[in-house]
Amino acid sequence: MSASVKKAAVIGGGVIGGGWVARLMTAGFDVSVFDPHPQAEKYINDVISRNEAAMLRLWPGQTTGQRGKITYAETIGEAVDGAMLVQESVPERLELKQTIHQEIGEAISDQAVIGSSTSGLLPSDIQKQMPHADRMMVAHPYNPVYLLPVVEIVGGEKTSQNAIDTAMQIYSDMGMKPVHITKEIDAFVGDRLLEAMWRESLWLVKEGVATAGTIDDIVRHGLGMRFAQMGQFMTYRLGGGEGGFRHFLEQFEPSLKWPWTKLMDVPEWTDNLVNSIVSQSDEHTGGLSVSELETIRDNNLVDFLKVLRRNDWGAGKTLKNPADMISQQPDQMDASAVPLITWQGVVHEDWADYNNHMTEFRYLEVFSMATDKLLFGCGAGPVYVKQGFSFYTVETHIRHLDEIAIGEPIYVETRLINHDTKKLHLYHDMYGGKEKRHLASGEHMLLHVDMNAGRVAPMPDHLTQAFAHIANAQSELPLPDAAGAAIGMKRK
Amino acid sequence: MSASVKKAAVIGGGVIGGGWVARLMTAGFDVSVFDPHPQAEKYINDVISRNEAAMLRLWPGQTTGQRGKITYAETIGEAVDGAMLVQESVPERLELKQTIHQEIGEAISDQAVIGSSTSGLLPSDIQKQMPHADRMMVAHPYNPVYLLPVVEIVGGEKTSQNAIDTAMQIYSDMGMKPVHITKEIDAFVGDRLLEAMWRESLWLVKEGVATAGTIDDIVRHGLGMRFAQMGQFMTYRLGGGEGGFRHFLEQFEPSLKWPWTKLMDVPEWTDNLVNSIVSQSDEHTGGLSVSELETIRDNNLVDFLKVLRRNDWGAGKTLKNPADMISQQPDQMDASAVPLITWQGVVHEDWADYNNHMTEFRYLEVFSMATDKLLFGCGAGPVYVKQGFSFYTVETHIRHLDEIAIGEPIYVETRLINHDTKKLHLYHDMYGGKEKRHLASGEHMLLHVDMNAGRVAPMPDHLTQAFAHIANAQSELPLPDAAGAAIGMKRK
Repeated sequence: MSASVKKAAVIGGGVIGGGWVARLMTAGFDVSVFDPHPQAEKYINDVISRNEAAMLRLWPGQTTGQRGKITYAETIGEAVDGAMLVQESVPERLELKQTIHQEIGEAISDQAVIGSSTSGLLPSDIQKQMPHADRMMVAHPYNPVYLLPVVEIVGGEKTSQNAIDTAMQIYSDMGMKPVHITKEIDAFVGDRLLEAMWRESLWLVKEGVATAGTIDDIVRHGLGMRFAQMGQFMTYRLGGGEGGFRHFLEQFEPSLKWPWTKLMDVPEWTDNLVNSIVSQSDEHTGGLSVSELETIRDNNLVDFLKVLRRNDWGAGKTLKNPADMISQQPDQMDASAVPLITWQGVVHEDWADYNNHMTEFRYLEVFSMATDKLLFGCGAGPVYVKQGFSFYTVETHIRHLDEIAIGEPIYVETRLINHDTKKLHLYHDMYGGKEKRHLASGEHMLLHVDMNAGRVAPMPDHLTQAFAHIANAQSELPLPDAAGAAIGMKRK
Repeated sequence: MSASVKKAAVIGGGVIGGGWVARLMTAGFDVSVFDPHPQAEKYINDVISRNEAAMLRLWPGQTTGQRGKITYAETIGEAVDGAMLVQESVPERLELKQTIHQEIGEAISDQAVIGSSTSGLLPSDIQKQMPHADRMMVAHPYNPVYLLPVVEIVGGEKTSQNAIDTAMQIYSDMGMKPVHITKEIDAFVGDRLLEAMWRESLWLVKEGVATAGTIDDIVRHGLGMRFAQMGQFMTYRLGGGEGGFRHFLEQFEPSLKWPWTKLMDVPEWTDNLVNSIVSQSDEHTGGLSVSELETIRDNNLVDFLKVLRRNDWGAGKTLKNPADMISQQPDQMDASAVPLITWQGVVHEDWADYNNHMTEFRYLEVFSMATDKLLFGCGAGPVYVKQGFSFYTVETHIRHLDEIAIGEPIYVETRLINHDTKKLHLYHDMYGGKEKRHLASGEHMLLHVDMNAGRVAPMPDHLTQAFAHIANAQSELPLPDAAGAAIGMKRK
């Protein structure tokens, strides 16, 4: 599917609709928006800017978070024309949603799917009168939509399995985590959990046990960090240690009989309660504006996602590189290119030394990624390693020539100095910054190893040929000055 | 306060008690443990090892997460003798807690404070009969205690304000986030919130709306990542956008009247429900053992903490560097030692290549930490760097001689090959495994730099003298064979 034919419609802007616009554009969709609010474009542009900043942090080195185009339609019919996905995020009033979905249903094709962002209304109620009701379902995201991957998919009585399957695939291809909830209940799953905790919190504030700030502190310094990566059940599974989950669960039985929650009842909503919450929250956020808090939240969320991506866990597993969501692989290596660029990126934030420059050992990490790229490009990638063969670095010589600050672009040029059937002698030059300063050189000797036999072994013909091809392309280049140099200083 | 006089007692080991031991030792406390369970020492050692791995990841380059000593006492009286903090973590039975606290109260000094790790019992009930009841309070942590900073402080009727103040200071000095809850209620705050969500989850599973896995996925791909950094109230504050918190809160009023939670009632605890949860959780965790899940959890938590520390937010603000929590540097380097060991530790899990051996660039990370240690030990540590001077590595030559697996111990011996007023020529040898195999050598040339002037500058006398002292101690050693060698291979 090429970028030009992926089209989506977003009906209703605001915080949620704008979040959808940003996420869809990042995934390579052209998005047509319908929202009659006079300020709609301004709000949506704000969210797009936030997403742009977040994507630069999440996928450093890629030029932009926006891969698709945005247009504004005059009517719902115009917006949904040709869209494979229609996402509705208008206010939470059943009659309004019914009217809007009626119009959507009249205009869409048989192939399109319609997701409603409602956080509580039932899809069976929304779809009652509309044409194409079989294509309509709830697709409830969490704010900020452009960063949190989860989307709850709930079909109504008329929704077809085919539409659910199609929608699950579309959201998943966008790097989201669609979760199919098979029974239709008010507020679905996530908001019921939130509501339970929220009602308990309101009681705690009302009775003066804790303030909004205290409650938030307990959540974010403790249980919240467990929820962010494991959720509830998996966290409790660990509570039992090696004794097993069943044993641990059985310990819960008595506590269910204890009056450990006020949720038998709902607190009365008084001015007093609202005043308490607002003033406690004012104090706790210490003068930070909503916009400042949003920036802090987004930075934290992006960095959590990066952690989870690195650890190949939870929300990190669902992330899709925007470059992979558009049609072609833009960065296939051409081994005969001169110079041969084997790595490009920016200096990550967690590569910093105390001085906010790239720290010593990260230079070797970059050289090591450049070596991998060369090997992969020559046919010695992960598949080859699974067959039991690999290249081991036996020697490395790094010269540090210049510093480079966090966030700056860097790239590596690679020379194949020498090779035979068992050895590779590589030479990397790292350049960076706007001026393409020469930052470092890395000279490496690698041996081809039969890992099962545990010894050096001759490489197969296809590899020697691939390396010979590179050597040939580079044969006119002079030997780097520093190749083969030793470390030393005149002894006193 | 010097390291030698900070003493704590831990009564009751297990997951929670062991976590306290690990956290206290990291903070420089000598810990005396009382736990009559025959396996207590084994369990505690397991937790200490987990903490050690976590601290290496959280504070890379520091030799160990354990700064205090652990001893095992025969009686409660022996354990609490001289302790400024007594932390009790015995099973949740009121009579047992009362008996234990009676014994603690009889043995402690007027200055000590006593924290109970109970997650639900009231401090007024626990302290009813004991001497020194004014010093006793609830100090309820979250698992894993060595990583999650929050601790709920709840005094009973007899608890003095002075004891609360002292305890808040002690926990805070340990890098924790003590939160004072002024009203004594069952389960305090965090566990009430957890219980509310848990009861709702049980209903969702029981009624077949969602599985344990689905619920966890919704939590960890969505709301959990908001909780981890902002909690509930602050997250909702952002939901209202620029419209303000009060306006947003007022939208909640109708939803409080909706039947959006089952918590008017508690689900019956049947075999069926337990079986569903266990089998759904088995499927969701896909065969990972408790120990494997604990490692994943700890890595994620450490990395979240690192993110929050870098972003100066939430739990990241409470973190205290272990080196700052002890008065003296107990691992002061003896620069005249021969051989000079500059780094000891184990191969972290996140240092693995695809083969579960230490990956290439981590060798340089270890050598880099060894270099830092030598420089710190000679008086060119963080304080010196703040004055605007530093050593920059300009060249590195690594020879990889052998592999080393994750979890294996490694250490580095360092030679000062040569030095003058502007340069240092170092040579590290890395050894590892039980057999102390020679894993790698690292040869490094460093220049002394005046960072403000941006150029190489002569080092002050105290540094040249410190290096001369090392050179003198090592003068009898032969030059390493590989020093000054170049990388190369015969050209075809």
